[in-house]
Amino acid sequence: MPLHLIAGGAGFIGVNLASALLDRGYDVLVADDFSRGTREALAPFARRAGFSLVQVDCSEPDQVERAIADYDVAEIWHLAANSDIPAGVADYRVDLRQTFLTTVALLDVMKRRDIKTIHFASSSAIYGDHGDRLIHEDIGPLLPISNYGAMKLASEAQLRAAHEAYVERASVFRFPNVIGIPATHGVILDFVHKLRATPDRLDVLGDGTQQKAYLHVTDLIAAMLHIADRQEPFAVYNIGPSDSGVTVRFIAETVRDVCQPRAEIRFGDGNRGWVGDVPRFHYSVQRLRDTGWNPKLGSNEAVRRAVREIVAQEATP
Amino acid sequence: MPLHLIAGGAGFIGVNLASALLDRGYDVLVADDFSRGTREALAPFARRAGFSLVQVDCSEPDQVERAIADYDVAEIWHLAANSDIPAGVADYRVDLRQTFLTTVALLDVMKRRDIKTIHFASSSAIYGDHGDRLIHEDIGPLLPISNYGAMKLASEAQLRAAHEAYVERASVFRFPNVIGIPATHGVILDFVHKLRATPDRLDVLGDGTQQKAYLHVTDLIAAMLHIADRQEPFAVYNIGPSDSGVTVRFIAETVRDVCQPRAEIRFGDGNRGWVGDVPRFHYSVQRLRDTGWNPKLGSNEAVRRAVREIVAQEATP
Repeated sequence: MPLHLIAGGAGFIGVNLASALLDRGYDVLVADDFSRGTREALAPFARRAGFSLVQVDCSEPDQVERAIADYDVAEIWHLAANSDIPAGVADYRVDLRQTFLTTVALLDVMKRRDIKTIHFASSSAIYGDHGDRLIHEDIGPLLPISNYGAMKLASEAQLRAAHEAYVERASVFRFPNVIGIPATHGVILDFVHKLRATPDRLDVLGDGTQQKAYLHVTDLIAAMLHIADRQEPFAVYNIGPSDSGVTVRFIAETVRDVCQPRAEIRFGDGNRGWVGDVPRFHYSVQRLRDTGWNPKLGSNEAVRRAVREIVAQEATP
Repeated sequence: MPLHLIAGGAGFIGVNLASALLDRGYDVLVADDFSRGTREALAPFARRAGFSLVQVDCSEPDQVERAIADYDVAEIWHLAANSDIPAGVADYRVDLRQTFLTTVALLDVMKRRDIKTIHFASSSAIYGDHGDRLIHEDIGPLLPISNYGAMKLASEAQLRAAHEAYVERASVFRFPNVIGIPATHGVILDFVHKLRATPDRLDVLGDGTQQKAYLHVTDLIAAMLHIADRQEPFAVYNIGPSDSGVTVRFIAETVRDVCQPRAEIRFGDGNRGWVGDVPRFHYSVQRLRDTGWNPKLGSNEAVRRAVREIVAQEATP
């Protein structure tokens, strides 16, 4: 069976993708430096036929080439990136190396090893704040306001140039906020941790009116596979639910209701949580819908399901 | 007087900018690694009051910080980049380091040294091929087809994120093809050299129908200063003439007429000279025109003047 390399495959989305690719009967090679993802997250696959794992810094092309030398890689799924946006705002080198130079290195390896297909986890963070304009894939100008968004945009640019030269097929998935398990970061996990520390109250950054669309990771993976199956030469898709999202207040209340129904929620001021966070977002997924794909869960249901899953995950010793 | 740092200031455009800034009475510090630009090009300024020069690799923030430690830099003009597009297509590390990591390093130095204003030489290469669509500054999607274009786009993205955090004012100049002296590369210089080697014939890559707009460097510098004077928080401008450009055939004939009127011009096939070269281009400069600025020379006149200048430059021992 064709072998799929998942760069950053020990992370939240990588683990779910590995599972789905194995379910399809593909061989899967996960490459990860375990700076964020963990070996434990991959433990369920350890004994599945066709699953392999290499520890490697995906921003170092020589390292990657050596690590995959024994494998005949058919396609690359590039999920390696910094996932801590504030860390990247504080120190640009974090996103430079982990979010951008991983793309550069993987493209280099594709050229060296004659690998023709790559699927890339980009982000809605490349767009920035467009007020009330509907954000479709071809919108301009692009206004990333975090180093993370900037380095995702830089990655897309490099992919585009590589496609002109030696990459035959590329998918660019512009992710919304994705939730589910195994959760390693994000607002739901934060709230669960806060309520564990102080069961009587939940302090929320910002005034709670911040609104975002959320996709459950199972829908995200389904969309990625759906797009990859179309085999377009250069596919760029916003992925997300069709709704306009839910507020931070809704998430806080959902977590509170599950974890500590009597806790008091206390909001801060302003509708920007931190530098680099876009307060509101009108995200068009029409291009994806036009291909016949729809998510099973809206933002609302995705949050409810993810809260239950994450609470259960955190309760497990 | 305020001191302006020109990164890559020994190159073609840097030398012209240094001259213009000195003429305005500013102090000028040129930072260059002399990998492409030369000390000779700056010789005319050596004894002008307020002119300084440091040799430094602008992709290394520590080096840059040390090199400018004795100067109170008010504004940065970032012209440091690879100017050999085919070299960057052959080896992505050329544009990664020279075109992108210079931007990253200079932004780092701005943060460390509390420098608030930067002017950046971007490129029309960030747009890619849009067929007959008019290319205005806010067009999407962005489709760079060379590593050079990709790394200019990456630089713009990083600038945008830095502007959100600590850069107060940024100008992004999207350059067209710029011609004039001191010429170090480009189609006119190539043709002059070819005719010197084989005075009876001029072999042209492609069929000569390739059409591009050209701006004379004196107009480019005028436009850059005009935009900088507007002091917008984040200014993005296409710079160029208002015409649709001239063909390679016109340039070849102009050079031939000046250098070797009896030489035969022989064209190749196809209208793409090399990978990464966009054959045709409808470039809107309406935003710049709306500010009241217009170039003195159209493409046609710019080419005629540059040919005379470059022929004279090459004739000087």
